[in-house]
Amino acid sequence: MDRHCPLPLENHDTVQLAHGAGGRLADELLGKLFMPLLHNRFLARRDDQALLPAFSGKLAFTTDSYVVTPLFFPGGDIGSLSVHGTVNDLAVGGAVPRYLSAGFVLEEGFPIAELERVVRSMAAAARECGVEVVTGDTKVVGRGQCDGMFITTSGIGELRDGVDLSCSNLRPGDRIIVSGTLGDHGIALLTARHGLSFTGSALRSDSAPLHRLVAAMLDRYRGVHAMRDATRGGLSAVLNELASASAVGIVLQEDTLPVDSAVRGAAELLGIDPLEVANEGKLVAVVPQGEAEGVLEAMRTCPDGTGRNAALVGEVVQEHPGMVVMETGFGSRRIVEMPLGEQLPRIC
Amino acid sequence: MDRHCPLPLENHDTVQLAHGAGGRLADELLGKLFMPLLHNRFLARRDDQALLPAFSGKLAFTTDSYVVTPLFFPGGDIGSLSVHGTVNDLAVGGAVPRYLSAGFVLEEGFPIAELERVVRSMAAAARECGVEVVTGDTKVVGRGQCDGMFITTSGIGELRDGVDLSCSNLRPGDRIIVSGTLGDHGIALLTARHGLSFTGSALRSDSAPLHRLVAAMLDRYRGVHAMRDATRGGLSAVLNELASASAVGIVLQEDTLPVDSAVRGAAELLGIDPLEVANEGKLVAVVPQGEAEGVLEAMRTCPDGTGRNAALVGEVVQEHPGMVVMETGFGSRRIVEMPLGEQLPRIC
Repeated sequence: MDRHCPLPLENHDTVQLAHGAGGRLADELLGKLFMPLLHNRFLARRDDQALLPAFSGKLAFTTDSYVVTPLFFPGGDIGSLSVHGTVNDLAVGGAVPRYLSAGFVLEEGFPIAELERVVRSMAAAARECGVEVVTGDTKVVGRGQCDGMFITTSGIGELRDGVDLSCSNLRPGDRIIVSGTLGDHGIALLTARHGLSFTGSALRSDSAPLHRLVAAMLDRYRGVHAMRDATRGGLSAVLNELASASAVGIVLQEDTLPVDSAVRGAAELLGIDPLEVANEGKLVAVVPQGEAEGVLEAMRTCPDGTGRNAALVGEVVQEHPGMVVMETGFGSRRIVEMPLGEQLPRIC
Repeated sequence: MDRHCPLPLENHDTVQLAHGAGGRLADELLGKLFMPLLHNRFLARRDDQALLPAFSGKLAFTTDSYVVTPLFFPGGDIGSLSVHGTVNDLAVGGAVPRYLSAGFVLEEGFPIAELERVVRSMAAAARECGVEVVTGDTKVVGRGQCDGMFITTSGIGELRDGVDLSCSNLRPGDRIIVSGTLGDHGIALLTARHGLSFTGSALRSDSAPLHRLVAAMLDRYRGVHAMRDATRGGLSAVLNELASASAVGIVLQEDTLPVDSAVRGAAELLGIDPLEVANEGKLVAVVPQGEAEGVLEAMRTCPDGTGRNAALVGEVVQEHPGMVVMETGFGSRRIVEMPLGEQLPRIC
């Protein structure tokens, strides 16, 4: 259970410039909020660096900054998102996620209660992922100099033996698998941000950790060629990057792409392509043809449910290297382009 | 030499929202700016995580967010600062700094030329420190949603065998050493920010990497009890944290504290205590009495000059645990308190 976090701190119920200043108030924020909520033996040392046990093999190292707005959205918040995103970047690299760092930039006047809510959510997400937030930093900027709160998490994971995942590994004949419905995060954020509601639907972010799904896949077949989580730029960006890095073509079958009907409806209404929208709990895997069905089965039966809607959606071809082509239900073909940029800023 | 970085990118000479959006413009920013300037085999993989070689021993892991203003200041800039700060946090933990990550939050409209200048400075600082920026992320927020640029760097270092540095290691009789003049960074920032100038003086930040100094110290005596870089909150904050964590007292001799005369003058005029001001290239070490002179000598003769003004400034006592006391030149004593918070916001 979480330890008690006594509020308000030092009679402040909002973040003060001094909370980021390395003095008594900063010390109090660390001691009364961050340490009790994220508590572990590394943070308890109160040094400026965590000393981690030796790893037996190679490491994976990743970082992401989170500037999502709103901070709290259907299906998640910036705290859980900042853990899931970094855990997923380690997982799809073939690593077992172990340790996270967290750097906070806070706006003067930000409510301490909201900060507590975010850190609590971060702590819960870290527990679920089997990782620890072992070191961190807090800076405070004046009013109007940032928008509430930004978080940057970095992560270290332990690379599995015998795994070689890279965006340059695609070979003609490989199958393309996606782990579930596409576009949920982006569309949920957009509707939440603009206060839209669609009758009968509950649009929620898919923010979720994928480390168990990846473990199930690699346990089934260690030789998976490539994996990426389909965040900013969505499926379109990931497939274009993979095709380009491996100098191969990709052909998608439109009718196999899993898109939730509420997401499809909202996306149509908003004029947004769900394939270009960020996901925060979905991955794309490229698997040799003969192993694709086995890996798909391992995904669909992964006990945490993150792969229950996994689908085989296309294949790698020798033709049109660097290009992604979609075969539509009507037998025609269209090019799936690399998105120019964000249809939705501050989605993660 | 740095590779050529063709500007403007895609006919944009300022940062667009799409540069942080995982699509074509983001790809271009990565491929034409970050990768050529920071180039290394890890970034070249273009995956979302760096796969690092195995380490033989324990690791140190640290993170810091940088929100300094102005971005360019006498003696440094946010790019070099973000490398030095993280390198120093690893070094004072007893580790050899190896790999960095960098997360950028940029404001829409930020000049690409300034971004290039910052990344170029970061690359130069990394080379000097023998570290590589192996993974990164860029987010862009709308105008007015951040103040130009924030950077969060995390770092991984390899812990030296037989070193045990911790803020709870202080023992009565230990000597307190500082590596050079105090308050330079904070006072230089403040005067730069307000356009003040003091005749005949050249106030410059002391931003510098301390990894070679720490190596020289630990080569001379591996049993150093504690080390901290004296950043936010200055010497006062560090010594109060050390005294409190080790439940010992500390006595300083005022006339031994190295403060540059121009810094002292500016600080007096501004009503600021140089002991409470951030340094970005100074450390505090706590060393057993019998080894203090040897370590001091190793610091003063460190070839990069970062320890040339090192001084023995006080000692650890059994009395007044948790309290730092200064003996002044007039034979009186005063308490050196933990600063409440920042006299100078956004100093690093």
